[in-house]
Amino acid sequence: MSDAPASPTLLSRLAAEFVGTFWLVFGGCGAAIFAAGFLNAEGTHLGIGFLGVALAFGLTVVTGAYAVGYISGGHFNPAVTFGVFLSGRLESRFVLPYIGTQIVGGLLAAVALFVIASGQADFAIDPSAAGSFATNGYGELSPGGYSLLSALLIEVILTAVFLWVILGATDGRAPVGFAPLAIGLSLTLIHLVAIPVTNTSVNPARSIAVAVFNPAALGQVWLFVLAPLVGAAIAGLSYKFLFAAKN
Amino acid sequence: MSDAPASPTLLSRLAAEFVGTFWLVFGGCGAAIFAAGFLNAEGTHLGIGFLGVALAFGLTVVTGAYAVGYISGGHFNPAVTFGVFLSGRLESRFVLPYIGTQIVGGLLAAVALFVIASGQADFAIDPSAAGSFATNGYGELSPGGYSLLSALLIEVILTAVFLWVILGATDGRAPVGFAPLAIGLSLTLIHLVAIPVTNTSVNPARSIAVAVFNPAALGQVWLFVLAPLVGAAIAGLSYKFLFAAKN
Amino acid sequence: MSDAPASPTLLSRLAAEFVGTFWLVFGGCGAAIFAAGFLNAEGTHLGIGFLGVALAFGLTVVTGAYAVGYISGGHFNPAVTFGVFLSGRLESRFVLPYIGTQIVGGLLAAVALFVIASGQADFAIDPSAAGSFATNGYGELSPGGYSLLSALLIEVILTAVFLWVILGATDGRAPVGFAPLAIGLSLTLIHLVAIPVTNTSVNPARSIAVAVFNPAALGQVWLFVLAPLVGAAIAGLSYKFLFAAKN
Amino acid sequence: MSDAPASPTLLSRLAAEFVGTFWLVFGGCGAAIFAAGFLNAEGTHLGIGFLGVALAFGLTVVTGAYAVGYISGGHFNPAVTFGVFLSGRLESRFVLPYIGTQIVGGLLAAVALFVIASGQADFAIDPSAAGSFATNGYGELSPGGYSLLSALLIEVILTAVFLWVILGATDGRAPVGFAPLAIGLSLTLIHLVAIPVTNTSVNPARSIAVAVFNPAALGQVWLFVLAPLVGAAIAGLSYKFLFAAKN
Repeated sequence: MSDAPASPTLLSRLAAEFVGTFWLVFGGCGAAIFAAGFLNAEGTHLGIGFLGVALAFGLTVVTGAYAVGYISGGHFNPAVTFGVFLSGRLESRFVLPYIGTQIVGGLLAAVALFVIASGQADFAIDPSAAGSFATNGYGELSPGGYSLLSALLIEVILTAVFLWVILGATDGRAPVGFAPLAIGLSLTLIHLVAIPVTNTSVNPARSIAVAVFNPAALGQVWLFVLAPLVGAAIAGLSYKFLFAAKN
Repeated sequence: MSDAPASPTLLSRLAAEFVGTFWLVFGGCGAAIFAAGFLNAEGTHLGIGFLGVALAFGLTVVTGAYAVGYISGGHFNPAVTFGVFLSGRLESRFVLPYIGTQIVGGLLAAVALFVIASGQADFAIDPSAAGSFATNGYGELSPGGYSLLSALLIEVILTAVFLWVILGATDGRAPVGFAPLAIGLSLTLIHLVAIPVTNTSVNPARSIAVAVFNPAALGQVWLFVLAPLVGAAIAGLSYKFLFAAKN
Repeated sequence: MSDAPASPTLLSRLAAEFVGTFWLVFGGCGAAIFAAGFLNAEGTHLGIGFLGVALAFGLTVVTGAYAVGYISGGHFNPAVTFGVFLSGRLESRFVLPYIGTQIVGGLLAAVALFVIASGQADFAIDPSAAGSFATNGYGELSPGGYSLLSALLIEVILTAVFLWVILGATDGRAPVGFAPLAIGLSLTLIHLVAIPVTNTSVNPARSIAVAVFNPAALGQVWLFVLAPLVGAAIAGLSYKFLFAAKN
Repeated sequence: MSDAPASPTLLSRLAAEFVGTFWLVFGGCGAAIFAAGFLNAEGTHLGIGFLGVALAFGLTVVTGAYAVGYISGGHFNPAVTFGVFLSGRLESRFVLPYIGTQIVGGLLAAVALFVIASGQADFAIDPSAAGSFATNGYGELSPGGYSLLSALLIEVILTAVFLWVILGATDGRAPVGFAPLAIGLSLTLIHLVAIPVTNTSVNPARSIAVAVFNPAALGQVWLFVLAPLVGAAIAGLSYKFLFAAKN
């Protein structure tokens, strides 16, 4: 998630964003689908819960950004690409190719998760249940039954702070090399707060990828495209004027 | 939480402390309010528990300090500002503006949490319950029913060690760049120990922010202003004389 | 897991791989065997669950790679050695000695675990139970009852991404010093996703080590040799041609 | 835990070891005593379990070593001091003062924990229960009922690997600045494995500190002095001859 150097080709940048977003959806949503609520034969809960899912999402970014961040910037998220562009740190010609690649990478990960999950006899997606197949939702599809307004507000706030952390930690004055750790762990923190409210998006590519398998979630996915982009815009523009000015 | 360089303007410093303290209260208290004890429809406990809350508080500081620590020092806590000032590493003219900004940032985060939480049908703050709306308390308002003396002692001790870690990890001889990680993870550790005793403060801004929504907690908030300041004073002064001396 | 410098002798390299793979199996499988599902006398679940096991496996690599990675490269895994070799970053003369040493180190750790576990009165390995003595499996031996195809697919995908993270994080353009952290935490993430499916291998030495104590697992161990090697080959070759090219 | 520079005075070194060992016992044993098995009023388990205790012990070392490691080396453990001395990296004149200071720092932390714990109405130490007041034990005092031999073996093995990680991560060829992180996280890993077996020692100062409050534990404390010292000796000597030689 550092300011990408000028040298990598567009192909290698898109390959990096593809692998990274695949990893984010496969690792984060996969942990939620396979491992969140696992009970053993005696009924003991060995599953990873929301804490494990939060850690999984964060670690996809920590590890992906150390692996390919120096090639593409390590966005893995259309809202990040949009906010970094608005802050003035990404050339406009990269915005649409990045976002398109992120969506494709996320979708392919969701396909792989669907195939693997289908190898379990009692697997089924339940459109009436909140968070089925790791989808995001509000109202009746919010894990804790939170309203549309609560969902909108928390997604805008968390994406805005996420972008501030990204822009701040990759600033030239921040400690060198720690940005992937700080950014990934902020995604863990975001999930620790918001899973009960929306199942946590802050990332339209992640929301779209799993929603295509769940018709109810697809009807609410607009919020998880809109709110992250609004939050990212607030942060990208405010960071540009406040912190990036001579200070 | 590094020794802030001289160049940032007061406005950018206060903006950094505002965002950081907002993040600390929104992320830490938000995780406690929304996610600590979540049960799914089958009664399986998927919530993050005290461990997840401890991680959340720590990660607000890890991520906030990497993002804006080089601007303001990344205090996000009046006790930290006071202790760093007493140790001789912060100019006196910053003390009151920092503390005022931290309190305002924390309060705004608590307002946002209240609005989001109110979007759930069965949300209510119960002044007779320990830790309702993530408030700190002792006696009947201590999660584990610990006495005022226990609360006072643990808050003083933990804030003192917190400040020693802050001052030690930002010392010129410590490994470069790791201070936000060490300091944030020490806040996680502090929460792992003290949530059952006081719900963990070590930060007057965090305690005040949520107490204004809970009259019972407001009556005990004096302890969570006093004890962190006493602990910070012990550490700031002892560090100055013992470790900062020629050794 | 950095590109090992040329100077260490073969003996010190093999000693490093021996200690590291011993540590991976002793720490990761040991956590699973001793601590995953611990109930106290009142029936409260104090065990570390799949989340703790995932953390344990990852930390064996984080700590082992910081301790001896600069000697041997810190592979601790035949699939890693194979993939790094195919990517062109390991001399062919090291491949077989590394893999042999890793298998021996893992086996010795499994022996130590067996002796320690036998000191508990009710210890027994149950070949009909999934994951008994931390073994890997599919079908009836998959913790969540996942099919052979699901097991094959998830092990190939996860090992491939694991190798991409390894090769990317040790690339000369990646932040210096963070590779052991990124690589170890990616192993934690891999376990957060896949324990319910296969009990997570991505490492033939780890699978073989415990399978020799469990005849049912031994009959399925071929998949946990084959799939990680295939995933590693995909990643090693694709990384060589895509990312390592001039970009 | 780095090779301490020559300049710090003996007084500042001992102050660092005192604060660090106080922190290790207060933070690690405190998390175990206050927070491991906390149930809320509805019976939901919000406690941190063995995973949280493991994290707490590790973070005491991560944070303590970043804070004062450059002064004293950050041992906080007589077995570490002994092993580092045998490896040739600590002058003999520091060994006894370090160990004495560590024991005093640990004892003072246990006194503070006892006073705070006594502020809860139903606090009591039960000598017939395994791990009461966070004590170490074997046989009937092992949390999982493991034998003396199992306890001895696991403590020797884990202390030996702990010392190898310490000596390896502070070697001049290891990545700069990461040693406190690697060493502290290895202590977390050690606890993830061994809490059910012995409640995890690998540190005589930690075992002695709490055992003085629990007569049954005091009768077994010899093993938790002996085994860590034996493990440390094995590692200190073998590291000196194998890895520290020209390789």
